[in-house]
Amino acid sequence: MDPLFQLLLRMGDNTLVLGHRVSEWCGHAPVLEEDIALANTALDLIGQTQMWLGLAGEMENKGRSADDIAFLRDIWDFRNLLLLELPNGDFGQTLMRQFLFDAWHSIQLGHLINSSDPRVAAIAEKAAKEVAYHVERSADTVVGLGDGTDESHARMQAALDYLWPYVGEMFQSDAADLALVKQGIAPNPASLRGDFDALTRRVLAQATLTIPQDNYAQKGGKTGARHTEHLGHILCQMQWLQRAYPGETW
Amino acid sequence: MDPLFQLLLRMGDNTLVLGHRVSEWCGHAPVLEEDIALANTALDLIGQTQMWLGLAGEMENKGRSADDIAFLRDIWDFRNLLLLELPNGDFGQTLMRQFLFDAWHSIQLGHLINSSDPRVAAIAEKAAKEVAYHVERSADTVVGLGDGTDESHARMQAALDYLWPYVGEMFQSDAADLALVKQGIAPNPASLRGDFDALTRRVLAQATLTIPQDNYAQKGGKTGARHTEHLGHILCQMQWLQRAYPGETW
Repeated sequence: MDPLFQLLLRMGDNTLVLGHRVSEWCGHAPVLEEDIALANTALDLIGQTQMWLGLAGEMENKGRSADDIAFLRDIWDFRNLLLLELPNGDFGQTLMRQFLFDAWHSIQLGHLINSSDPRVAAIAEKAAKEVAYHVERSADTVVGLGDGTDESHARMQAALDYLWPYVGEMFQSDAADLALVKQGIAPNPASLRGDFDALTRRVLAQATLTIPQDNYAQKGGKTGARHTEHLGHILCQMQWLQRAYPGETW
Repeated sequence: MDPLFQLLLRMGDNTLVLGHRVSEWCGHAPVLEEDIALANTALDLIGQTQMWLGLAGEMENKGRSADDIAFLRDIWDFRNLLLLELPNGDFGQTLMRQFLFDAWHSIQLGHLINSSDPRVAAIAEKAAKEVAYHVERSADTVVGLGDGTDESHARMQAALDYLWPYVGEMFQSDAADLALVKQGIAPNPASLRGDFDALTRRVLAQATLTIPQDNYAQKGGKTGARHTEHLGHILCQMQWLQRAYPGETW
């Protein structure tokens, strides 16, 4: 697979799958303000998906639309991080996951803004503005809940412990990544770890949370080698309409 | 819609939807014995679905298969009782629902055995043997858990309170039912209430459970006028394979 196409799927599948997960909170968040904020985040992520997968489709000979790529692929074709397909859990776990992803996402986009491919740079620039706000908001919530009541602290620590094994995948490289580095299109994933650690350590310390010592990392999502069982369930719901009513339009 | 076709959908959709729900327990039941028993119940119900919907398909000009009827219809075409599409809840709620349905189902099949339509009578005779065992087993479990610990008693009472508003739909009649009564094909739904009340009162009393006073009945499932939000989620999962891979065979 073309390395750039791979990058576009990875970026677009990350935002598609997390956008879907976050949208599951719509109408269920603990307070109205959070409900609206989460719905807005989901909308931002789906909008970014449209751009990444739209560009991926433009690269193809047969030229699939972003919708076709999103709705007519099966599990093994998805390239999102495993972290993003995990169930939401409680509100705290959802926001902890959001923060961990936002931290990586904002750093990644900060590099992609300088991509040698002007189309990638343009999408990154639009997305980075939204994600700067996402990470500010999720970091604030992680601090508020982590350094909150005994109950909220315990839940945030449990969320961090549960999600931490899914963080390492963000920084794993494969041949596609290295080809992109060579072409100046994207940064080496491993090179983002320093900035990520600095940001997360600062926020999690303020949140009075302890980062797990074990750095064992689950993998398989960004390469597509192995997804969790949860992705199939997401696709069942996400793709139902287009599967049941092929080619249907508004 | 032809009244007989309507009856076949109602019988087949009941067993299809409950069979799917019960199958969700596979690998998750509290003890191995129960896991196997539930999987067997689900298999019986899906087997009965094959017969009811198979006969429905034979009645059509275009002659859909039982699979086509099961997997290629949308929510509004389903004719199952609302009770059966409700989420499983805990093990006790699942078994309480099973008992309430088994009680009605065994009585209904006892009448259909004498149907003036020999095809209906033949299916009913096969199904009745399985359902006689289902109701014995679910009644025993309801008694065991209802007259068990404080915790299990409280859960079974909560399950009965939650499910009771969905019982009345079993006994509601419409024009199709009355046409079937006239032709001697099926009993009047309302006429089954006496036997149902006698059976459930006896078992629930033995289970030390209190039948709710309020007889308000939810409706809309057997007529297809209005299903709960849960049916759409069931269909997402149940129909996914046939929607994603149309016409695929083993």
